[in-house]
Amino acid sequence: MRAVDIIVSKRDGRALSRDQIRSFVSGVTEGTLPDYQASALLMAIVLRGMSAEETAWLTDAMVHSGVRVDLSGIPGVKVDKHSTGGVGDKASLVLAPLAAACGVPVPMMSGRGLGHTGGTLDKLEAIPGFRVNLSLEEMKAALARTGCAMLGQTEQIAPADKKLYALRDVTGTVESIPLISASIMSKKIAEGIDALVLDVKTGSGAFMKTEADSRRLAESLVSIGNASGVHTEAIITAMDAPLGCAVGNALEVIECIEVLKGRGPADLVEVSLELAERMLLVGKVAPDRPDAKRRVAEARASGAGLERFRRIIEGQGGDPRVVDDYGRLPHVPGRHEVTADRGGYVVRLDAELVGRASVALGAGRDRIEDSIDPAVGIVVRATVGDRVGAGDPVLELHYRDPGRLNAALALLARAVTIGDDRPVVRRRLVGEVSGEVPS
Amino acid sequence: MRAVDIIVSKRDGRALSRDQIRSFVSGVTEGTLPDYQASALLMAIVLRGMSAEETAWLTDAMVHSGVRVDLSGIPGVKVDKHSTGGVGDKASLVLAPLAAACGVPVPMMSGRGLGHTGGTLDKLEAIPGFRVNLSLEEMKAALARTGCAMLGQTEQIAPADKKLYALRDVTGTVESIPLISASIMSKKIAEGIDALVLDVKTGSGAFMKTEADSRRLAESLVSIGNASGVHTEAIITAMDAPLGCAVGNALEVIECIEVLKGRGPADLVEVSLELAERMLLVGKVAPDRPDAKRRVAEARASGAGLERFRRIIEGQGGDPRVVDDYGRLPHVPGRHEVTADRGGYVVRLDAELVGRASVALGAGRDRIEDSIDPAVGIVVRATVGDRVGAGDPVLELHYRDPGRLNAALALLARAVTIGDDRPVVRRRLVGEVSGEVPS
Repeated sequence: MRAVDIIVSKRDGRALSRDQIRSFVSGVTEGTLPDYQASALLMAIVLRGMSAEETAWLTDAMVHSGVRVDLSGIPGVKVDKHSTGGVGDKASLVLAPLAAACGVPVPMMSGRGLGHTGGTLDKLEAIPGFRVNLSLEEMKAALARTGCAMLGQTEQIAPADKKLYALRDVTGTVESIPLISASIMSKKIAEGIDALVLDVKTGSGAFMKTEADSRRLAESLVSIGNASGVHTEAIITAMDAPLGCAVGNALEVIECIEVLKGRGPADLVEVSLELAERMLLVGKVAPDRPDAKRRVAEARASGAGLERFRRIIEGQGGDPRVVDDYGRLPHVPGRHEVTADRGGYVVRLDAELVGRASVALGAGRDRIEDSIDPAVGIVVRATVGDRVGAGDPVLELHYRDPGRLNAALALLARAVTIGDDRPVVRRRLVGEVSGEVPS
Repeated sequence: MRAVDIIVSKRDGRALSRDQIRSFVSGVTEGTLPDYQASALLMAIVLRGMSAEETAWLTDAMVHSGVRVDLSGIPGVKVDKHSTGGVGDKASLVLAPLAAACGVPVPMMSGRGLGHTGGTLDKLEAIPGFRVNLSLEEMKAALARTGCAMLGQTEQIAPADKKLYALRDVTGTVESIPLISASIMSKKIAEGIDALVLDVKTGSGAFMKTEADSRRLAESLVSIGNASGVHTEAIITAMDAPLGCAVGNALEVIECIEVLKGRGPADLVEVSLELAERMLLVGKVAPDRPDAKRRVAEARASGAGLERFRRIIEGQGGDPRVVDDYGRLPHVPGRHEVTADRGGYVVRLDAELVGRASVALGAGRDRIEDSIDPAVGIVVRATVGDRVGAGDPVLELHYRDPGRLNAALALLARAVTIGDDRPVVRRRLVGEVSGEVPS
């Protein structure tokens, strides 16, 4: 099978065969397919698309580029959650302990922040001592011990994805629903889960800007998951403004602990609990939605979720005392307020600009090899819909380096809009995509 | 300027700026742009296209990747001819001596055969001793001496094209009118000519299968040439069946000498003279078409064209006696006839299959590094429109190796169609594209 024939087929708008897709993925994995041929094919896929069948074959080939973890030794329906990425999106740190406390085994493999969006691993590593680079054996042990393992991708999981993603990143071939779907789902399917709840973000701060695109992505993900025997559901949530108030790793950890203590911002509580409830349902721990709602609320109210988070932290080498003493988390003394230049309502708080400003402060990375500063970040003091007077604080920047502060402020210059009329604030939850429940 | 931003612009269907195109071409030329980024951009260009303006900028950037030869020291309007490639397309060896004999300086840079089409350089090298690898100084000396130089691309001419073509060849990005146009015209503009006559082939044995595509390519080429100050015209000629009767290098040389002697197949005579007449017109040697026709015919009838070919051969180190003694050209004893399996009319003689069979015999190459056998080839004994009886010869194969003969015969199994009704044979000349004549 000649690589150029595969490229020409897709270039001319034809569907690829299963064998052609396998040959492409194994060539990438083994390094026998030159990068210049892979990138030409990727661009043809971006512009010509892939059918649901081709996307499923691509995902399957990527799963089989590595190992598919066997978690059958652990009782129960293993459920993971995945978000397509946003600003201040810290829901995983709330829902994983809650779902685990309710009896759902949660093997959660997450990523790092890239560009303006944050990553769960970076947030967890803000907790002193927390180890995310667990081996597959350590992951199983953690699951058995606390019902939850929060870790990074291991080398054995979908190695083709790692190589493809590195190439897509530098060849303008990231923006493709089939390629995004296969990338996400190959890793999730390979980690050995039985069910998956997805949070597909939509809006100016999300990868998918329109609800229609987000829905198409959600449908593609759900279809692939269910076709592979992973019971998959998705919700679509708004990502125009940051989720919750904290953006930046240690700041976000604090906010999550606050939610587990029964406090915290309403939108973060809404999204986290919605996802946790769905995890109980697909995990067959709760028979129906009202029951799931009740159990999750109870785990939060009783402190069982908080207690579970403490055990998860301790089990993965972290300092559990951060739960009670936020001073044990990294922090910086530098503070700078961005204030309202007039009185009125906050009608816009641009998630992407806030995310990029947070990266500029050092909380994220532009390139995967950049190091990050867990202490810095941004706290939203007045969010969309809030009434402010002229000079009232809207954002509070926690900074270490004055040069970086200036870079962040330059980005924030156009991030906030104050208007006269109270804006209509849409709920975070804007849609859902449910697949067939396998019998 | 980040390469990925250029890729994304074209991917999303936007026009590239002149600076973006220059950056791409200089990155390719200097090797600073990774192949995987170049190939992603090439695929985006194939699928999104380029405007006439972008194509002109691309051509210009490719011209400036090397030297633009200065032929101003040679008096007269320097005219070249280029064909987009076909099977049995040997017109250059006829028209160059004829035009030179009529007083047109002809600096002709040609290519080698690739795939099913032949190349002028390979045909010339079938003449013992003929040197095509002239330096630019040798080219000027040949022009001054015989009014004609027939040579290969030198390293200084559009080096970006050489790198881009090698990449396009293995990434399924050859088929693009803007890329083909820039590739052809950058080399022609760089060689320092004042005018150019193009033969754009159309049909099953051509690169462009439909007349509409061939016309689009012709218009693109003519537009670029004239915009760069090279007076450019194109004719569109049919390439369904081989041009003339000989396919294979030494066999084609003989056929060209026959035409210069006033004989030869009518279709080859038609195309060669049409192109030569146009060269006299754009070369300002003839004031009008009837005069050009008369002069070319006279050069052929008087033997001046043949005499000029003899001088060109001698001037470039070849054995001029081949003109009188075909036995001095490479030849093989092996003969095999493909005969008509029934009586009737030849209604189809597939140029591409005949071309591929000739390559299989050893007359051409699948890869640029393959060596070729100048002696082998195929002679058409009955062409489209000819009446044949069952068992009459249609093709005569000149072969050296029986294994290669079998490979060629396998390709020819479906190359000939005999029908009951005399087919309507279209003229070779199916259209023309003339640009504005610069004042």
